[in-house]
Amino acid sequence: MTEKIGILALGHGSRLPYNKDVISGVADLIAEKYENTVVRIGFMNMDDPTMDEGIKAFEGTGVTTIVAVPIFLAHGVHTTEDIPQILGVSRENRSTIIHLNDSDVTLFYSEPLGADQLIADLAYKRALEAME
Amino acid sequence: MTEKIGILALGHGSRLPYNKDVISGVADLIAEKYENTVVRIGFMNMDDPTMDEGIKAFEGTGVTTIVAVPIFLAHGVHTTEDIPQILGVSRENRSTIIHLNDSDVTLFYSEPLGADQLIADLAYKRALEAME
Repeated sequence: MTEKIGILALGHGSRLPYNKDVISGVADLIAEKYENTVVRIGFMNMDDPTMDEGIKAFEGTGVTTIVAVPIFLAHGVHTTEDIPQILGVSRENRSTIIHLNDSDVTLFYSEPLGADQLIADLAYKRALEAME
Repeated sequence: MTEKIGILALGHGSRLPYNKDVISGVADLIAEKYENTVVRIGFMNMDDPTMDEGIKAFEGTGVTTIVAVPIFLAHGVHTTEDIPQILGVSRENRSTIIHLNDSDVTLFYSEPLGADQLIADLAYKRALEAME
């Protein structure tokens, strides 16, 4: 059996429901398409589960690698300072070892989405939809 | 000649350079790939050009339709209240007529990026890159 990768989809969190809906929806879409993944979600603030709860939610899944992916468009104070501090990583040293189920698990911290052709394609799609 | 669509890529704006870099980068990627577009950028706050300046930047391009696309992941107070107010549209009536170069131009307001497979694919790509 191929080992699965844990992906922790990190959201900003909001008092409104939209941010959580998008993060949850994206997490489901990753899990459905990429069968080699175990996907969990966590929010920086204002929503549950928290990032720590999201990491704990990998207990029992058997993953030995978790990648925390900030579902943010761009870097900012949250992705460069707040989230790395919570995860115990830095921009220079983007991985750490955490303990889960009495096992060592490697936690990586990825880049945010950034300026990618996929974002450009999606923005163009939204533009066309708006004119329908 | 096929008429071009004006796309106004709307960013949140930030005191840090990252948000503007991403919005500018996405705008360039749209313009390069989709030859039927004229793309301009505008920021809600903290960065130039403003949204109004972004709209004015379509003067002389000959576009008769502009779609303002919020390059935001999810709806929130900004996309449901602040930006529609600046644009003069509402969520119920998502288009308006503006005057540009003494011509009438239809301005549409699109949905934000949202929970789309393209975001899921990009998040998965960032996860794989982080493990390299």
